[in-house]
Amino acid sequence: MKNVKIALLGLGNVGRGVWKILNTNKEEIRQRAGYDIEVSKILVRDVNKDRGINVPKGILTTNPDDIFEDDSIQIVVEIMGGIEPAKDYMIKAMEKKKHVVTANKFAIATCAEELFSVVKKEGVMFKYEASVAGGIPIINQINDSLTANKIKEMIGIINGTTNYILTKMHLEGTSFDDALKEAQEKGYAEADPTSDVEGYDVAYKLAILTSLAFETKIDVNQIYREGIRNITSMDIKYAKELGYVIKLLAFVKDIDGNLELRVHPTMIPERHPLANVNDSFNAILVRGNAVGDLMMYGRGAGDLPTGSAVVGDIIAILRNGLSVNPQENRDENVIVRDINDMENTKSRYYIRATVKDVPGVLAEMASILGKNDISVLSVIQKGKGKENVGLVFITHETLEGNINRAIEEMKKSPTVEEIDNIIRVEKIKNQ
Amino acid sequence: MKNVKIALLGLGNVGRGVWKILNTNKEEIRQRAGYDIEVSKILVRDVNKDRGINVPKGILTTNPDDIFEDDSIQIVVEIMGGIEPAKDYMIKAMEKKKHVVTANKFAIATCAEELFSVVKKEGVMFKYEASVAGGIPIINQINDSLTANKIKEMIGIINGTTNYILTKMHLEGTSFDDALKEAQEKGYAEADPTSDVEGYDVAYKLAILTSLAFETKIDVNQIYREGIRNITSMDIKYAKELGYVIKLLAFVKDIDGNLELRVHPTMIPERHPLANVNDSFNAILVRGNAVGDLMMYGRGAGDLPTGSAVVGDIIAILRNGLSVNPQENRDENVIVRDINDMENTKSRYYIRATVKDVPGVLAEMASILGKNDISVLSVIQKGKGKENVGLVFITHETLEGNINRAIEEMKKSPTVEEIDNIIRVEKIKNQ
Repeated sequence: MKNVKIALLGLGNVGRGVWKILNTNKEEIRQRAGYDIEVSKILVRDVNKDRGINVPKGILTTNPDDIFEDDSIQIVVEIMGGIEPAKDYMIKAMEKKKHVVTANKFAIATCAEELFSVVKKEGVMFKYEASVAGGIPIINQINDSLTANKIKEMIGIINGTTNYILTKMHLEGTSFDDALKEAQEKGYAEADPTSDVEGYDVAYKLAILTSLAFETKIDVNQIYREGIRNITSMDIKYAKELGYVIKLLAFVKDIDGNLELRVHPTMIPERHPLANVNDSFNAILVRGNAVGDLMMYGRGAGDLPTGSAVVGDIIAILRNGLSVNPQENRDENVIVRDINDMENTKSRYYIRATVKDVPGVLAEMASILGKNDISVLSVIQKGKGKENVGLVFITHETLEGNINRAIEEMKKSPTVEEIDNIIRVEKIKNQ
Repeated sequence: MKNVKIALLGLGNVGRGVWKILNTNKEEIRQRAGYDIEVSKILVRDVNKDRGINVPKGILTTNPDDIFEDDSIQIVVEIMGGIEPAKDYMIKAMEKKKHVVTANKFAIATCAEELFSVVKKEGVMFKYEASVAGGIPIINQINDSLTANKIKEMIGIINGTTNYILTKMHLEGTSFDDALKEAQEKGYAEADPTSDVEGYDVAYKLAILTSLAFETKIDVNQIYREGIRNITSMDIKYAKELGYVIKLLAFVKDIDGNLELRVHPTMIPERHPLANVNDSFNAILVRGNAVGDLMMYGRGAGDLPTGSAVVGDIIAILRNGLSVNPQENRDENVIVRDINDMENTKSRYYIRATVKDVPGVLAEMASILGKNDISVLSVIQKGKGKENVGLVFITHETLEGNINRAIEEMKKSPTVEEIDNIIRVEKIKNQ
């Protein structure tokens, strides 16, 4: 059996996962890869830190040049995260003709052009399955399994932290704040949860998936983004009553060659394939013009699931005999695509308002909707003999522009105390 | 751009799907494959039959030798189905050094050894993604994406016909007979529905998946198999009341190196990831020791979904430059695995009995269960003031042998009129 030396940049959570998998499944990996894999160096910040795994101290180094300058190392695995110095290190490794595997969504989402130009120039392999949705092989699926398709649409639950929070709120009636606190205690959410809760993390991943599936370049700032901080227990309660579940979804749709890109909380029917994706699980629904609806569901984070994707990429490089497949590394057409304005996107909407309990208030609200070309699918009015009443509409599909105009009008009405929330509603398609 | 000639064996449902995809997505496929694909011959039984698609008559032939003897044809796509002559044709094509893509589950499940020995001998590529679960790239996933894992377990809904029938029964209260009739009218079920309804089709697919994922050879006769003909509206009603859905599932589990293999109707909790897989959709849950739970969901049949898998395989061969990847075509270790006896498998069980409405009957039944080391999770007794009463138990996990002994004892009791049904019950794991 041939032997290959690889190096890890970083030995945090994912690094430990990679180490464990390479050891636990050593024999299977050897057979499948056709190589004995030797981790010959690992870049760390502190050689003496106790990491709770059995890594020989001799292979740890704090000097990245020990790796770049070692010509016997053929694959570098970047699992340190963050843009710098990770991106620079990946480029240095490729300039030394080393193949690179990474789990780094930030670097890919923000520096794809730079990274891929080095990949082409140096003629190395560059793989990043682990950068989106952890253990779910969504990038392989788009790149290798769905090649017969034009992809028309993707809808994903691709952030475990927010999905954990929304699951707690839905199943146990927990408040947003308590669910967030619990997620932090369990290590699912960071001390500063902004990136997860406000949807930034989802937007980065959506930018990567969209660039790949639609052969284009998406800047994360082109993506409309709403987080889940405004979802209240009251919204969850109404959602349940109406047969829906609230999820933070990433959407991309091909609309006649343009793209609709959005990240926002969404009410989906209880029987929607994404509705049972609970806790920290992720799932991505892909609509291809040949395959129809295809969904993948799995663990979007964690040392072993993410490690599964990283080690899978290492094995793919080895199976190819450490040589570049010209068809995979070809110059792709990059198609420039316009991003549709949110005003022109279509959806159903949930509108929850607090109104005065006076005669004619329902008629007034309904008439505002009607005037703006919005028809009503369901309505719930709950008076409790108090001065104010909760009023909830679910609309039929309409343009976001119509909703915005209707909401402006509602806000001006003296009978409307407050527009409490507006949440887009997704229906079940193709079934 | 290079040019490649391919031939189709068969122009039925899947053949037409392949033809449509190659035409509709021509430009994308060309880019991704690196080849212009020309379908230069198609084997049919009747050249003059109207197939509702625009295939030039000149490329149709009724003589298979027109294909085998044409050295310009480099890939043969077998989509005629059935074992003979399909298997012979595939072997002939390979002996002429042509790569083969097939959608043929029967040939793969029953003649794998013979087919793969020709593959190795002739040094050609042989791909069969479409043979299991139509458009779902489960074979790619096992072969390429999950290579870092030891697969521990797979659970699948891999027959669209029975899933359509069970969905109708569950959601609309339709009887088995009416649901089957409807499936036949819609073209989902054949005039003789035995292969689907009795679980044979599922067993063939499970044999293929198991051989691949567990590096072994499974004969379809080694698989325990129960169909769905005994599922009544009454069972569905109780399932709903208890928060379950009934699905026809295929199971394979690695039990310390041995395998547990079974196909049978199963009650799964409403929030199980497989519970929302409705109508003719398929889904497969894979448990790997690194990735954890991973599920794929999609269309298990149909011209375009199955065609998506076939064309994906063609593109994969072309991307590899029509040359064999030695690591993919290596001699695999075939591990001989014992199949566990059903008596030793563990599950929860639903037992529905009709008993006489006499004092002490519940105590008697419960005591039979207790004596056989079976503890009860839920019980429903519904008397209607009639002579006989419906009694339903859901047990905790226990050995099938214990259940069999308990049922024998129950049948001997004079208070038991009938054991109406016994259905295995699956719980939600790893969440």
